[in-house]
Amino acid sequence: MRIAVLGHGVIGRHVCATLEASPEHELKWILERPELAVEPKMTSDIGQIMSDPDVDLVCDILPGTHPSYEYMKMALEAGKHVVTVNKAALCFGFRELVELAESKGCFLRYEAACGGTIPDIAETLKLAQTNEIEAIFGIMNGTTNYIIDKMNREGADFAPTLREAQQLGYAEADPTADLSGFDVKNKIIVISNTAYKGYCTTDFPMCGIQWLTKDILDRFRAEGKTVKLFGISVREGERYAIGVAPVVVSMDALEAHVPRNYNLFTLRASKAGEIKLYGQGAGGVPTADAVVRDITAIAEAPARTGEAYFSRALTYDPALLSGKGYIGGETVEGTLEELCRKALAAEQFMAFEPDRL
Amino acid sequence: MRIAVLGHGVIGRHVCATLEASPEHELKWILERPELAVEPKMTSDIGQIMSDPDVDLVCDILPGTHPSYEYMKMALEAGKHVVTVNKAALCFGFRELVELAESKGCFLRYEAACGGTIPDIAETLKLAQTNEIEAIFGIMNGTTNYIIDKMNREGADFAPTLREAQQLGYAEADPTADLSGFDVKNKIIVISNTAYKGYCTTDFPMCGIQWLTKDILDRFRAEGKTVKLFGISVREGERYAIGVAPVVVSMDALEAHVPRNYNLFTLRASKAGEIKLYGQGAGGVPTADAVVRDITAIAEAPARTGEAYFSRALTYDPALLSGKGYIGGETVEGTLEELCRKALAAEQFMAFEPDRL
Repeated sequence: MRIAVLGHGVIGRHVCATLEASPEHELKWILERPELAVEPKMTSDIGQIMSDPDVDLVCDILPGTHPSYEYMKMALEAGKHVVTVNKAALCFGFRELVELAESKGCFLRYEAACGGTIPDIAETLKLAQTNEIEAIFGIMNGTTNYIIDKMNREGADFAPTLREAQQLGYAEADPTADLSGFDVKNKIIVISNTAYKGYCTTDFPMCGIQWLTKDILDRFRAEGKTVKLFGISVREGERYAIGVAPVVVSMDALEAHVPRNYNLFTLRASKAGEIKLYGQGAGGVPTADAVVRDITAIAEAPARTGEAYFSRALTYDPALLSGKGYIGGETVEGTLEELCRKALAAEQFMAFEPDRL
Repeated sequence: MRIAVLGHGVIGRHVCATLEASPEHELKWILERPELAVEPKMTSDIGQIMSDPDVDLVCDILPGTHPSYEYMKMALEAGKHVVTVNKAALCFGFRELVELAESKGCFLRYEAACGGTIPDIAETLKLAQTNEIEAIFGIMNGTTNYIIDKMNREGADFAPTLREAQQLGYAEADPTADLSGFDVKNKIIVISNTAYKGYCTTDFPMCGIQWLTKDILDRFRAEGKTVKLFGISVREGERYAIGVAPVVVSMDALEAHVPRNYNLFTLRASKAGEIKLYGQGAGGVPTADAVVRDITAIAEAPARTGEAYFSRALTYDPALLSGKGYIGGETVEGTLEELCRKALAAEQFMAFEPDRL
């Protein structure tokens, strides 16, 4: 494989170093900002990469939706395989990218976009060959798990814990995408699309942990429970529901004991039963490792036949995800969508206890 | 793929049903006992299967080491791919089977032999492409986890819990292989061979849970701990250690909360970090599902080039696995091997607390 890597930050540098050391791969181009494009392989001209017929695969490690989405489209249109870490760009145009890849006989792989090095996408694809995947849920964001875990262990309150997480690099200077659930939203959409072989809506309300307090955690702990920010989706036939919210978990559940910035994905499959996958959902070296394994998998795969994997017509039915919402001392029943709207309108923390999961 | 299935018990029947329903596969033969070989595809003559040039793949679901091992050899010698669930036969002649498969350009796959439907073998192979796997450990036996979990939850003692597990089908009438650690031994050998790309010794002492009592669990619980039967192996360069023993785990660890007959495998890899894989380690439908996915993977793979994957010369060094052993109220320090010998000689329960894992 002759490869162009777009982006040369922490992950990009690890990917480039691994490719340079690998006899099976050839690193052809690195897209870098003009002022930093000092090595012969570096260019700041995306056209030079896309028009190079020697480039077999484009590896997108750029931040943000744009121009990552446009670059992936250009690459696929030029008949180049794509590996991406960019869940936001993937979610923005999932259908377009997938259909373009299919029509061009190209691979589009994105293991690292959803759960870093955790093999959730690979395992989802594998299970879906012989199973109906019925539910996906779990801890999909390391920053929020780090904060909740630390608050639980140290009895600390939200604001100082967030500040410490920022100082240690576990939370960004602007933590909104993590705290609001937006990061999890992108991940649960990507993995649900993959599992259900169709396109789930991106239009649903979500709750994050921005209004979490020590008191709330203490109250749940007194009942042998805690809360963790979950991405959730469930499916019955062609109907599905999807959401993001803090979920009440028993201290007896594995989820309650996921430490620091680790993630834990659960897949429920018709034959295989419940599979849980745990690991580092982010980080330069683990994420770069997942990217390189995606590249290797494409290099070793037989040519793509252009089959349509994402071919199912799915119907959004929020009633499939109902339960109790604990909002500011009150208990309300409803669908997760209704409960999220209520909590968002009140600007209050909501903990969701599903009727069934 | 044209397939012969050896064995027609619970798993075999599920595999056959799935293959019959699958347009990509053709079920050619089922090996069945003479008195039960009533359908046209059934035969009790193994020679008929092995000499049939139309059979591409032999799927071994027989119990016990023999004749499963001999049948797998015959199949590979005849140039047929092999999928097996049989960890005992695999351990008995791992090197011979692997080298035969390599020399014949055949695939030998065994996902279901080690952890049922849990993708531990697939993930091990995938991680090992780009990582050094440094440690493997975890709960690899459902029967013993079921017993410990139930004793912990209900404050019950060992003997009545074992009897109940037998009545419910979670333990066999002769539970020795599970309780003594023999089943885990086969699994930790198979997965370690796969991870370290070489052949680990099968000659090491092991401790099981046959001498576990309620009092022992109560004592650990008072300290915020419990014990779980682990398979463990660690590697440093070309040296490794391997063992099976009850391991002391904090109630804060995921392992402490694995319920019923579930398994939890941990892989520690140089780049990906710690990955944990949880699921049903046994059961007819989940295991059959893993078998069918192995068959599909072989059908979809490019032809095997005969490369030698298991090519590393490994040296057994028990000193890599040292720690404390709690044996009958006493605390002893030593290698896991020494501690196991001591506990076995005294016919006492041993809980191992590794210095590092």
